Amino acid sequence: MIHLFFYSRRHLLNRTVLLISLLFIGSAFAQTRTRTEIRIPDILGYRTLKCDFHMHTVFSDGTVWPHIRVEEAWREGLDAISITDHIEYQPHKEDVKADHNRSFQLARGHAEALDLLLIPGGEITRRIPPGHLNVIFVQDVNILDKKDWYKAISAGVEQGGFCFFNHPGWYHSDNVSRWYEEHDRLLQDSLLHGVEVVNTRDYYPVAHQWCLDKNLTMIGTSDIHNPINLDYELHRGDHRPVTLVFAEERTPESIRDALFKRRTAVYSAGLLIGREEYLKAIFRTSIQIRVPGRAIRGKGSILLQIQNTSDIPYHLVLEEENEFISTPAKIVLSADKTVLFRVRSKADNLSGKKDFSLVYRIANLLATPETGLRVTIPVRVEFVPES
Amino acid sequence: MIHLFFYSRRHLLNRTVLLISLLFIGSAFAQTRTRTEIRIPDILGYRTLKCDFHMHTVFSDGTVWPHIRVEEAWREGLDAISITDHIEYQPHKEDVKADHNRSFQLARGHAEALDLLLIPGGEITRRIPPGHLNVIFVQDVNILDKKDWYKAISAGVEQGGFCFFNHPGWYHSDNVSRWYEEHDRLLQDSLLHGVEVVNTRDYYPVAHQWCLDKNLTMIGTSDIHNPINLDYELHRGDHRPVTLVFAEERTPESIRDALFKRRTAVYSAGLLIGREEYLKAIFRTSIQIRVPGRAIRGKGSILLQIQNTSDIPYHLVLEEENEFISTPAKIVLSADKTVLFRVRSKADNLSGKKDFSLVYRIANLLATPETGLRVTIPVRVEFVPES
Amino acid sequence: MIHLFFYSRRHLLNRTVLLISLLFIGSAFAQTRTRTEIRIPDILGYRTLKCDFHMHTVFSDGTVWPHIRVEEAWREGLDAISITDHIEYQPHKEDVKADHNRSFQLARGHAEALDLLLIPGGEITRRIPPGHLNVIFVQDVNILDKKDWYKAISAGVEQGGFCFFNHPGWYHSDNVSRWYEEHDRLLQDSLLHGVEVVNTRDYYPVAHQWCLDKNLTMIGTSDIHNPINLDYELHRGDHRPVTLVFAEERTPESIRDALFKRRTAVYSAGLLIGREEYLKAIFRTSIQIRVPGRAIRGKGSILLQIQNTSDIPYHLVLEEENEFISTPAKIVLSADKTVLFRVRSKADNLSGKKDFSLVYRIANLLATPETGLRVTIPVRVEFVPES
Amino acid sequence: MIHLFFYSRRHLLNRTVLLISLLFIGSAFAQTRTRTEIRIPDILGYRTLKCDFHMHTVFSDGTVWPHIRVEEAWREGLDAISITDHIEYQPHKEDVKADHNRSFQLARGHAEALDLLLIPGGEITRRIPPGHLNVIFVQDVNILDKKDWYKAISAGVEQGGFCFFNHPGWYHSDNVSRWYEEHDRLLQDSLLHGVEVVNTRDYYPVAHQWCLDKNLTMIGTSDIHNPINLDYELHRGDHRPVTLVFAEERTPESIRDALFKRRTAVYSAGLLIGREEYLKAIFRTSIQIRVPGRAIRGKGSILLQIQNTSDIPYHLVLEEENEFISTPAKIVLSADKTVLFRVRSKADNLSGKKDFSLVYRIANLLATPETGLRVTIPVRVEFVPES
Repeated sequence: MIHLFFYSRRHLLNRTVLLISLLFIGSAFAQTRTRTEIRIPDILGYRTLKCDFHMHTVFSDGTVWPHIRVEEAWREGLDAISITDHIEYQPHKEDVKADHNRSFQLARGHAEALDLLLIPGGEITRRIPPGHLNVIFVQDVNILDKKDWYKAISAGVEQGGFCFFNHPGWYHSDNVSRWYEEHDRLLQDSLLHGVEVVNTRDYYPVAHQWCLDKNLTMIGTSDIHNPINLDYELHRGDHRPVTLVFAEERTPESIRDALFKRRTAVYSAGLLIGREEYLKAIFRTSIQIRVPGRAIRGKGSILLQIQNTSDIPYHLVLEEENEFISTPAKIVLSADKTVLFRVRSKADNLSGKKDFSLVYRIANLLATPETGLRVTIPVRVEFVPES
Repeated sequence: MIHLFFYSRRHLLNRTVLLISLLFIGSAFAQTRTRTEIRIPDILGYRTLKCDFHMHTVFSDGTVWPHIRVEEAWREGLDAISITDHIEYQPHKEDVKADHNRSFQLARGHAEALDLLLIPGGEITRRIPPGHLNVIFVQDVNILDKKDWYKAISAGVEQGGFCFFNHPGWYHSDNVSRWYEEHDRLLQDSLLHGVEVVNTRDYYPVAHQWCLDKNLTMIGTSDIHNPINLDYELHRGDHRPVTLVFAEERTPESIRDALFKRRTAVYSAGLLIGREEYLKAIFRTSIQIRVPGRAIRGKGSILLQIQNTSDIPYHLVLEEENEFISTPAKIVLSADKTVLFRVRSKADNLSGKKDFSLVYRIANLLATPETGLRVTIPVRVEFVPES
Repeated sequence: MIHLFFYSRRHLLNRTVLLISLLFIGSAFAQTRTRTEIRIPDILGYRTLKCDFHMHTVFSDGTVWPHIRVEEAWREGLDAISITDHIEYQPHKEDVKADHNRSFQLARGHAEALDLLLIPGGEITRRIPPGHLNVIFVQDVNILDKKDWYKAISAGVEQGGFCFFNHPGWYHSDNVSRWYEEHDRLLQDSLLHGVEVVNTRDYYPVAHQWCLDKNLTMIGTSDIHNPINLDYELHRGDHRPVTLVFAEERTPESIRDALFKRRTAVYSAGLLIGREEYLKAIFRTSIQIRVPGRAIRGKGSILLQIQNTSDIPYHLVLEEENEFISTPAKIVLSADKTVLFRVRSKADNLSGKKDFSLVYRIANLLATPETGLRVTIPVRVEFVPES
Repeated sequence: MIHLFFYSRRHLLNRTVLLISLLFIGSAFAQTRTRTEIRIPDILGYRTLKCDFHMHTVFSDGTVWPHIRVEEAWREGLDAISITDHIEYQPHKEDVKADHNRSFQLARGHAEALDLLLIPGGEITRRIPPGHLNVIFVQDVNILDKKDWYKAISAGVEQGGFCFFNHPGWYHSDNVSRWYEEHDRLLQDSLLHGVEVVNTRDYYPVAHQWCLDKNLTMIGTSDIHNPINLDYELHRGDHRPVTLVFAEERTPESIRDALFKRRTAVYSAGLLIGREEYLKAIFRTSIQIRVPGRAIRGKGSILLQIQNTSDIPYHLVLEEENEFISTPAKIVLSADKTVLFRVRSKADNLSGKKDFSLVYRIANLLATPETGLRVTIPVRVEFVPES
C-alpha cells in the first residue's frame, strides 16, 4: 500500500476475525491455569527431572494448604516435589492438627490428577548441630518424630529415606557453612546422603566443596513457606531453585535411585551447580552453532550464530586466546535466543576450512565452588586470502 | 529454615555470585541484539521457513535505511525477506536517488553477514485495476520500471520473477477484494502466481477463496514502512504477518520453487491460513498429549495434559459430542504451554483401555475462508467400573 | 559518535556505575515486597478507597493462612479488606479449628503493621433463597453462627453490620440473578444493604439494576480462595475486582458510613460500574486534554492529545456527530498513556477560537446495566480560513 | 461462592461485556501509537522538561527518515529534541542529498502536529582535538559547514547557538575524557557551554567534574543512529539518556535560557547526574513517607511506608547510624512503588513522639563524580515504653 504517514492506516474489522474472537472473548485472563515447561535438555541417556524436595504448608510454619504446593509446582514445570513440614516446629498447632502425614495425604489426590510426583518427607528441625535435615521417601513421616535426632534419622533411613542437611550456612551470622562431628557420625553410618548447596536465594560454596570431597549429593531447594508468587517474580524469569535429577524414568523410584547415585545438579537464579560431566552435557546439548556460507577474507571477520535452546543463560568468558582467530572476550548466550559471535582472522594468508577449539569459561556454571566451568567450543571456519 | 514471617529473610551476597555478576554487570540492557526463533515446526519433510516478501525503505515511501530491514527480520526469527520499494511512487525523490536496485544493494552485505536470505524485488504501483503487484526474484529491479504495467510484469516474470497481487481489498472503501479482467489476463498468461490474503493487519477472505479456486499461492506480508517496533509490540507477543514457506532447503532457489508450487501458509495475529494438509500437519506436529496413569472410575473424570510446543495458540471448539466421554466445549492451547483437558465418562460401567477420536474445530486455523479447521484428536483412556 | 554499523559499539564499564551496581547486586529479584498503588483519582471531596470485602482462608474453604490476605492486598494497592470465611461450610474442620473469629485475629497484627484496614466479617452460606450473604463490621463473627438465617443476619446487623447478597446469579445454571421474597423481607426490615454486582470474573447486570431500583449499595469482590496469583495475572494488568469506596477519611468508620450511604463503584477487568455522578467524576478527573498551538487551516485537521492518568482504560464511542468538526468514531484512552485525537474541520471558512462539546459514550463505564456512560468532552479549537 | 477446587469455576460470558468487547476487538495491538510520560517531578518552580539534543538520521550516518525521530521522542514522553546530523561525515551522500537543514525541515511538520519542540542543530565532526561538538539553536545549520572548526563554531554561536562537547572519552582507547587547549580556547571565547557527561550508555565522570570546575552545563544524550527500539528495550524499563531541563516554560526559548544557565540534570539507566540542588529537589518531591498509627513498643519496631511516585529508583545506603533508632543499611525505593522501611528502637524506655533526621546516601544520584548524594530523611515516630 502507499504510506500515508501515520494517520490513515485503516483497521477495519474483518467478519471472520470477529467471529473467532467472539468465541474466545473474555478468556484472555480467565485461563491462568497453564504449565510452563522448564527448558533444560535430557542428557547422557537420562531424563532431566526438575524437582524441589523442601517446602512447607500450614501443617508447620507455611502459609498454604498442601495441594497448593502441587498446583504451583505443576504450573512451574516441575516433575516432582516433597512437602517437608517441620517435625518439631509447629507454630500453628493451636489451630491446625499436628499429624506429620497430613500434608502428604491432603496433596496426594491433586498430585495424581496432575501427574506430578509427590514424595513423602519431613524436616527434622534441631539446633545446630546437627541443624535441620530433610528425610524424604519415608513411608510414615510420623516416624521422624522422636526425641533423639539420631534415632529419628535412623528410623527414616531404615524406611528407605534419603537424608540431606539443610541450608548449612543459615545457622551462623556469617552465613558460612560449618560441618560438625555429628555430621561425620551420620556420614559414617550412611545416614547422611546429600547437602543443600542452594536454599532459597542462598548459595553455599563451602557445602558445594563438601559434596565433592565427601561424595554427597548436591541438592537445591526453595524451602518455600509463602504462596510462591509472593517470593518469586515468575513472570520476569525469576524462578525457585530446583534440583535437576538425571533419572532413568519419570518415577519416584528412579528419582530415589538417582539421588543415592548423586546424579543431580542445582539450577538457581542463573547459576547451574553440579558435577562437571552433567554441566558439560547440559551446555553441549543446549547450544547449536550456525556458520554462515561466507568465508573470512584476509584479516576480515564473520559472524557465527549460537542458538541457546535452553532456559539457562550461559555467560562465557574467553579463557585462552586462539592463535589464528580472535573471538569475543565475553559473550552472553541468552536463554532461548540466538546471539552473534564475531570471529576475526589474525593473519591475512589463511585459506580453506579449518577447525578450532575455542576455550571459554562459563562463569555461571559451577563444577567447583569458585571457578566457572571450562569448556571447548568447536568451530569450523573457512578462509580466503585477501585478493 | 524457620519461617520468621516476612521480616527476617536474609539476602547476604555470596562472593561467588558477586564475582560472576561483576563480569556481566551493565550488560542487562546492552545486549539487545538477539534473535528470537519463531516456533513453528517443520512438516511433511519440508523446512518451515518464515518469510516476508513485502516491505519498504527510504528508497520509496519507507522510513528506514535498507539494511535495517535485514536486522529487524533477523531479530524476529525470519529466514528470508524481499525489499519491494515502489517503482512508480517515489515521494523522497527530491532527497534520495531513484534507482530501484539500490535498496537491495545496500542491504545485501548485512544479509550475508547475518545469513538471512535477501530476495530482490519491487512493487509495481498502479491504480486498480490492476492495482499493486510485487514481482520478486527478478535480477534487475529497474526492468519493472516501464510505462505499460503489463510489459513491466512480463519483463519481471521473464527474469524468473514470482508475481503476486497486493492487499486486494485496500483499494475499496469496504475493504473487500475485487478481481478484474486484468487479473484474468495475467492469470491466463501465467504472469500472476499469488495473492496477499493478509497484508499488515488485514485478512482478505475473498482473496483466500481465490487462491483455492484459481490455484494461486497464499501470501501474507507486513508491507512495513516504519521501523517495525513502531507498528508491532513484539515484546507482547505481537508479530508481523509472515508467509510460511515449506521448502526443501533453506535457499532462495528452494523458496522460489515452493512459492511456484503453492507450498505456503500465512501466520498472522493468531490466525494460520493455508491449505488443509499444511495446517493439519502443523497442528499435529505442535501438540503432545500426556495421559496420566489414573483410570476413570465410574462416571468420574481424569485430566489429560496437552502441550503445545509452537508459538501458535490453538482455539479448539468441540464439533461432535462423543458417545462415551464428555470433553470441554472450548479449550485454548496457549502457545508454548501445557493445558489441562478434562475427560469425563458418560457411563459408569466402562472398563479397560479405549481409543477415541475427538472431533474439534480449530477456530483460528483457516483452510477455507469462513470455517475453522476440523481436526480429530486421538486419545486412549482407561476405565474402571465404580466398585 | 560516528556510526560504525552495529559491530563496534563499546560498552566499557565505568567504575562509578560498577560501584553502584555492586551495592545492589542480587537485589534484582530479592525485593519482591512492594506495593503498587491503583491509580484511580479521589473525587468530589472524598478519598477513593480500594476495598475487597469478600475472601476466604484455610479457616473455611480457602487455601491460605489469614495474614496472607493482608499481604496480598497491601501489595496490590488496596486500602481495606474483610476476610469472610463461610460460617456453615467448613470443609477443613477435620484439621483446622472452627472459630469464626480466628482468621480475623490471626491477620490483625499484620494488617496493623502494614496499615491496611481489616474489617471483621463472615459469610452466611445457605441454599438459595436466601443464598450467601456477607455481614461485615460485626464485632463477634461467631454471632452469625445460628440455625435460623434470618436471626443470624439480624444479630450481625444489630452489632452494626453491613449485609450484602453475594453472587446473585451463581446459584442458577443460566448465571442470571434472581430476587426472592426472602430478600424482600430482609430489605423491608433494613437487614439487606448491598448486592454484589461483580463477583470473581462475573458481572451481574440484573443485580446492577436492583441497586438502582431498590437503592442498594453496589459491591464488587474477588471472593478469592486461592493464593491470588493463581487466579489473576497481576503482572499483565489483570486485577481482582474491587469496590471503590468514596470515603471522607481512610478509616473503617468512614468506609462503613460510605457503604450505608451507597457511595461506591465497582472496578473489575476493564469495567467501571456505579452511579452516574461517581463515574463522571472519575472520568473527568482522570483525563487531561492538550491542544497544540496549531490552528486548523481550512478543511484540515489537528491532533489533540488526551492523557489518561488513571489505571482505567476508557473506550470511547462517538454518540453524536458534531456539526462543525469530525472526531474519531472510536478511541481507546489507554491506562496511564497519552493518545492522539484527530479533529478535522467540516467547513473551510471557519476562523477564530471555538468551543465544542463532543458527545461520546464510554462503553466500559456502566451507570446503567446495558448502556455505556454518556459524556461530553469540552474542546477549544482555533481555525484559520484556507488562504 | 463455595470453593469446588479448581475445576468448576464458570466463566460464562455476560452479554454486556460481550457487546463492549465487540466494539474494541482487534484493537489490542492496533493501537501502538501512545505516549508514555516520564514521571520525574517539576521542581523549584520550574518545569522539568525531558530533552535529547543529539541524534542522527539518514541525512548523515543514521538509519531513519527524520520525522521518525519526532515520533519516537513523542512516544517516549520527551518534550524537546534536536536532530544533529554530522556536518563533515556524510556516508550516504552517494544516495542522499547533502543539505544540513533538510532533516530539520522534513521533521518540522510532524513536530508541530505532535506538539514536540524541535530545535535545529548539527554536529561538527572533527578529529580530537577538538573532537565532535554539537551546536543547537542555530538558525541555518549549513553555516556550520566551514573548513575551519573554530570559525564554524563561532558562526553557530553568533546565530544564538548553544555549543557542547560530545562523548569526551570516546576518542580514546581507555574511554577516559581528555581536555585539550583547543577546549580552553573555546571556553575563554564563550564558545563552549556544555559537555556530554552521558552519551549512549557511557557515563564520563571526568567530564562530570569539568562541569563543576569550569561551570559548564551537563548534557546527556542518546546519540541514536538506529531506530530506537533496536538499541533500547523500552518495554523492559530501559530508556535513552535524557537531559532534564528545568525551564520556566515549555518553549524553545525557555529551554535555551535554562541551558545557558546550567539548569539541567542527566537521567540515564538508573543514574541521575546533576547539581546538588536539583537532585535533592527531585528526590524530595518524588517520595512520600507514611507513618502508621502504631507506636514502637519498647525495643520493638514499626514499618514505615515510602512511596516513590517517580520513574527513578532510589538506591539508599545508610550513611550515619542514628543514636535512638536503627533503620535498614540499604533500601531500594523502586520506581512507582511503595516499599517498607523498618524502624527499630534501640532503647526500651523511649516514649512520646520524636523527630529524627535519617542520613542516607543515594548511590545512584551523583552530584559529584564518585559519590552518591547525601540526603536526610525526616521521620516522626511515636514510642511507648514496654509495659
